[in-house]
Amino acid sequence: MKWIIRVNTRTGNISKQEASNEEMRWGGRLLISKFLLREVPPTCDPLGRHNKLIFAPGLLGDTSVTTTGKFSVGGKSPLTHGVKESDVGGEAGKKIARLGIKAVVIEDIPEKAGTKVLTIGGDQITLSEIPELKGKFVSETIRFLRKRFGREVGIICIGPAGEMKMAGAGVAVSDANDIQVRYAARGGLGAVMGSKGIKAIVVDDSEAVAPQVFDEPLLREVSKDLVQAILEDPKTENRHKLGTPAILMMANELGLLPTRNFREGQFEKAEAICGERIVEVIAERGGDGRSGTPCLRGCVISCSNVFPDPSGKKTVASIQYENITLLGPNCGIGDLDDIAELNQLCNEVGVDTIETGAAIGVAMEAGIIPFGDAEGAKDLIRQIGRGTHLGRILGNGVVITGRVLGVRRVPAIKGQAIPGYDPRALKGNGVTYVTSPMGADHTAGNAFETAKTVDPIGRDNQVENSRRLQIRAAILDTMGLCLFTRPPFVKNPNLFALFLKGRYGWNVTYEDVQKIGLDVLETEREFNRRAGVSEEFFDIPEFMREESLPPRNSVYDLSMEEMQQVWEVKIPNSVF
Amino acid sequence: MKWIIRVNTRTGNISKQEASNEEMRWGGRLLISKFLLREVPPTCDPLGRHNKLIFAPGLLGDTSVTTTGKFSVGGKSPLTHGVKESDVGGEAGKKIARLGIKAVVIEDIPEKAGTKVLTIGGDQITLSEIPELKGKFVSETIRFLRKRFGREVGIICIGPAGEMKMAGAGVAVSDANDIQVRYAARGGLGAVMGSKGIKAIVVDDSEAVAPQVFDEPLLREVSKDLVQAILEDPKTENRHKLGTPAILMMANELGLLPTRNFREGQFEKAEAICGERIVEVIAERGGDGRSGTPCLRGCVISCSNVFPDPSGKKTVASIQYENITLLGPNCGIGDLDDIAELNQLCNEVGVDTIETGAAIGVAMEAGIIPFGDAEGAKDLIRQIGRGTHLGRILGNGVVITGRVLGVRRVPAIKGQAIPGYDPRALKGNGVTYVTSPMGADHTAGNAFETAKTVDPIGRDNQVENSRRLQIRAAILDTMGLCLFTRPPFVKNPNLFALFLKGRYGWNVTYEDVQKIGLDVLETEREFNRRAGVSEEFFDIPEFMREESLPPRNSVYDLSMEEMQQVWEVKIPNSVF
Repeated sequence: MKWIIRVNTRTGNISKQEASNEEMRWGGRLLISKFLLREVPPTCDPLGRHNKLIFAPGLLGDTSVTTTGKFSVGGKSPLTHGVKESDVGGEAGKKIARLGIKAVVIEDIPEKAGTKVLTIGGDQITLSEIPELKGKFVSETIRFLRKRFGREVGIICIGPAGEMKMAGAGVAVSDANDIQVRYAARGGLGAVMGSKGIKAIVVDDSEAVAPQVFDEPLLREVSKDLVQAILEDPKTENRHKLGTPAILMMANELGLLPTRNFREGQFEKAEAICGERIVEVIAERGGDGRSGTPCLRGCVISCSNVFPDPSGKKTVASIQYENITLLGPNCGIGDLDDIAELNQLCNEVGVDTIETGAAIGVAMEAGIIPFGDAEGAKDLIRQIGRGTHLGRILGNGVVITGRVLGVRRVPAIKGQAIPGYDPRALKGNGVTYVTSPMGADHTAGNAFETAKTVDPIGRDNQVENSRRLQIRAAILDTMGLCLFTRPPFVKNPNLFALFLKGRYGWNVTYEDVQKIGLDVLETEREFNRRAGVSEEFFDIPEFMREESLPPRNSVYDLSMEEMQQVWEVKIPNSVF
Repeated sequence: MKWIIRVNTRTGNISKQEASNEEMRWGGRLLISKFLLREVPPTCDPLGRHNKLIFAPGLLGDTSVTTTGKFSVGGKSPLTHGVKESDVGGEAGKKIARLGIKAVVIEDIPEKAGTKVLTIGGDQITLSEIPELKGKFVSETIRFLRKRFGREVGIICIGPAGEMKMAGAGVAVSDANDIQVRYAARGGLGAVMGSKGIKAIVVDDSEAVAPQVFDEPLLREVSKDLVQAILEDPKTENRHKLGTPAILMMANELGLLPTRNFREGQFEKAEAICGERIVEVIAERGGDGRSGTPCLRGCVISCSNVFPDPSGKKTVASIQYENITLLGPNCGIGDLDDIAELNQLCNEVGVDTIETGAAIGVAMEAGIIPFGDAEGAKDLIRQIGRGTHLGRILGNGVVITGRVLGVRRVPAIKGQAIPGYDPRALKGNGVTYVTSPMGADHTAGNAFETAKTVDPIGRDNQVENSRRLQIRAAILDTMGLCLFTRPPFVKNPNLFALFLKGRYGWNVTYEDVQKIGLDVLETEREFNRRAGVSEEFFDIPEFMREESLPPRNSVYDLSMEEMQQVWEVKIPNSVF
C-alpha cells in the first residue's frame, strides 16, 4: 500500500489517500508528468493557486538498491512555463519512500505570506508556522531544523531566493551529516515552493515499515549485479576520485566549455579548475576536505567532494562540473577558491548555479561588472539573497536578466539557461536542449558521454543519439536511479525489467521499459503542448547560429526541422 | 505606382521597390500582418536580426479624407512575442503616404550600437549617424531635428527607453507644430526601433506628387458624406470638447476604472480628474492650454488637448483617458497636475503610459512606493529614462515588473498590460484582451462603446460583440482611419466600399470589406500560432477570476472555451 499525501497551503488541510492501481505504476519523473497533466491547468500561473509542487521518489526509491535515493521534484516551471522535473540526491527522498509515500503534493497558495514547515512522519503530517526561519540562508535553516527535529530527519528547504519567488531558485536537500547540500536546482521549483509559503519539509522515517517486496531474493541478486557492474565500469573509479569535474579537461579540449558568456569554448585557466586539480587541492589542504564522498547513504559511486579553503575549513560541498563551468569560465573566473565561494553563496541563497552563473555572465556582458571580477560576482549573488533590484533581476534567471539589461546574447532555451556544454561544439546537446520538454537541461540527455562515438561538431546521428539519451534519462529518472548508473544498463538493459519484477512482480520486458521512457516524454510533451511551450517554438539562441565558437569555430547548424524529427524517428532497437 | 522602402541597418543598404499587385491591396494593419507572416520567422528574437520594423500608412492614407493620417507601426512584439500593430496620428504618416510609399521596412540590426536617423525624401533616402541624439528625451530629439531639417518635415522617434531596448517603449510621432506628441505606444515597438539603432525617422514630403486617384469626384463626395456624418454624430461634439477623457465618469460609474492595481473599479477622486474637469482647468488657466485640438491636420473631430500647469505653461499634450487612468487611479493618484506630469515624463523617456502605469501599480503593490505617491511615481519614470536597475525593470513592462518583484496580481494578458477597462466589469473587453492577436489592447475591439446595449457585467453577447468590434477595428486600422470614425460607418457600412472604389477603382462590396477585416485577424492569428502565442494559451489573469471587483463585485466568469468561440461564431450580417 502506498500513499499520496496532499497538503493544501490555503486551507491547511492535509490528506493521505491510498495510491490507485494506476498510480502504483508511476514513480519519480513519470509520476510528476502524469500528475501535472491530470491536475494542473497547463496555462496556469506557475506561482499561482493552480500549480502544484510534487515530490516523488522513483519506482525503486523504497528499496536498498544502490543510488536509488534520487527523487523527483516537479511542477509547472516559472522559468520554462512548461513541465519541470528536477531530481536530487540527499537523504530526504529515501525517507519519504520508506514511509510508503508515493507522492507529496503541495497545493494552492496561502492567502497571507508565511514561513511554514511541513513535517512528515509515519502517522503524523503537520504544517506549522516557524517565523524565525524567514529569510534564512539554507545552512542556517538546516541548523535550526536539526536543533528542533534531531539528527535523523531528512530536510528539504529553500533559501531566501525561493521565498522571494525568484525563478532561478532551487530546492535544497541535505545529506546525512549536513556536510553537503544537494539541489533540485533547475526550473525554478524553489520559487514554486516559496509561492506556497513552505520554507522546509522535514521527514522523519523512524516509524517506517519495510515495503512488501515481490521477490526479495531476485531484487537482492539484481542489486548485487548492478553494484558489481558499476564497480567494474572503468568510468566509476574516475567518478569516485574526481567527481563530475573529471570531464572538465575533456570539455575544454573539445572546445565546448562555456567561457565568457558563451563567447569561447576553451578557457585559458582550465587546468587550474579541473577535476584533477581539485583532488590535489583537497589532498594538499586536508582538514574538512574530502574526495569521493556519497550524496546519499549506500551509493557505491560516491562522486561528491568537500572543497576546503586554504585553512582546511569547508568552503562548499560538493563542487561539481556545471557549477564550476557556469560560475567559473563562463564568468571569466579561473580561481578555484573563488568558484567554490560563488558556489557556496548560490547554495546559501538557494539558487541554481547554472541559471545564476549564466545570468552573471550576461550581466558581465551588459557591463555591470567586468568578466573575471570574482568579488563583483560574489556581491551579485549576495544581492540576490538580499533581494536588491539587481539581485532580483539576476535571481530570476538569465532570460529576465538579458531582457532587463538589454543583452541579446542570452544562452537560454525555453526560458532556461544552457548548462556547461556549448551546443555549437556538442550538437547532440543542442538537440536535447531544444527538444526536451525540460528546456536546456543536460540531464535530460547528455551527448557528452557519446562524444567519442558521435562526432560532437558533425551533423550526423545527433538527432537519433539525443533521442536515445532522452529516453534513457526518462527511464532512470522514473526509477529514481542516478544517471551515473547508465553504464551497467547499457551493457544489460534487461536489468530494468528484472528490478521491476523483483520489486513489484511486474512482468515487463525491456521493450516495456522503453515504453515507460517514451510515456514520460509524451506526457510531458502533451503538458507543454497545452501550455503553449512546445519544442517547435524554441530554437537555439540566434547568436549561436551566427557566431562561430572558438577554437573549433563551429556554428550551430541543425535546423529546427531536423531537430523536430527527434520525436518521429523510429525507436531504435536499443536506447542504451 | 507605390513603393516599398527597405533599410538594412547592418549593411546600410537602402532599396526602393515597386509594390506588387498583391501588395497594392494591402495597407496599414493588413500590410503589417502580411509582411510579418511572409518575412519574419515567427519564433525569432523580437530584438534580434530577423525581426522587422514596419511603417505603413492605411489604404486611404494618401487621400485628403478626414482622419486618414493614422498610420501603422508593426513588428514582432518584445512584450507579447506575437504580431504587433500599433497605429498613431501625428504628421509623419500622411507624409510617408504622400510620397507614394506603401511601407518602410527596417531590417536586421547593426553590428555596433548607434544613434542613426533615417531621412526619407522624394528621391533620396539616407541613413546617418547623429551621435548627439544618443539618450535624448523625445522633446529634445524633436527640437534637434527641427533645427537640422526644418519645420515642415514629419518626425518619428524614440526616447532613451527605446534606445535601451525596454519592452515598454513606444514610437513617438510629432504633430504639425510639435505641440503634442502621439505614440504608437503599445507592444514595445520602440524597443524594436532601438534594437535597430534607429533613433529617428524624418520625412520630407516637399517633393510629393499627388496620387493617381481612380475616381476623384466619387472620393470627394464620399469624403464629404463622411465629414457630414461625423459632424452630425452626437458623440463628436463630446469628443471634440472633452477628448477621450469624456468617458472617465461613465467608466467610474460602471465600476470598471482600474484603481490601485486593479483592486477597485471606482476611484474616490474621479471627479477631480475627469474630462469635464480637464476642460474647466484648461479654460481657467489659459496660457498654452487648449481643448479640441487635432493630432493631425484636417481632422474634423480634433479630440486632443494641451494641458497647462497653473501658470499656463504646457505640461503635456494630449492628456487622454488611458494615460489618466493607468497613471492616475491605478496608482491611487488623483491630482491632474501630477497625472499630467507623469504622462509627460512617459512621453519624454518614450514609454507606453498604459504599460508604465500598470508597472508602477505593481511596484506599488510590491511596496516599492505606496499607492498615491505621485512624487515617487515621477521618480520611477525618471529612473526608466536613466536606466537604473529599477527603471529597467519597470521599463520592461508590467509582466517583467511582477516577476522580478514577486507580485502575483499582474494585470496583463499575453505579456501586455490591461488598459483602462477592468474586464470584470466590462466583460466584452475581457474577450477582446484574451482573443485579440494583439493581447490586452482596447483599440483591438473596445466594448465600452456598446456598454449601453450589451450588459457590461453580464455573460450574454460578449463573445459576438467582441468579434464584431475586433473585425471593425481591423478594417479601420487597415484604412488608416481613426477609430473615432466608427459611427458613420455603423450607419452606412457601404462607405468603406465607396472609398475603395473612389481611391482605387476596386469593385468591392461591404461583404468584401468585412473579409478584409477577417483577413487581417486570420493572418495575425496565423503568425501568432507559428510563434507559439495563440490566444488559447493566455487567459484573463487568475486574480480576476478569484477577486471580485468593487463596487459591482463581479468576477470574470467567461471560460476560455466560451471566449475561444469568438473565431468560430458565424459572421454576423453586419459588423457595425
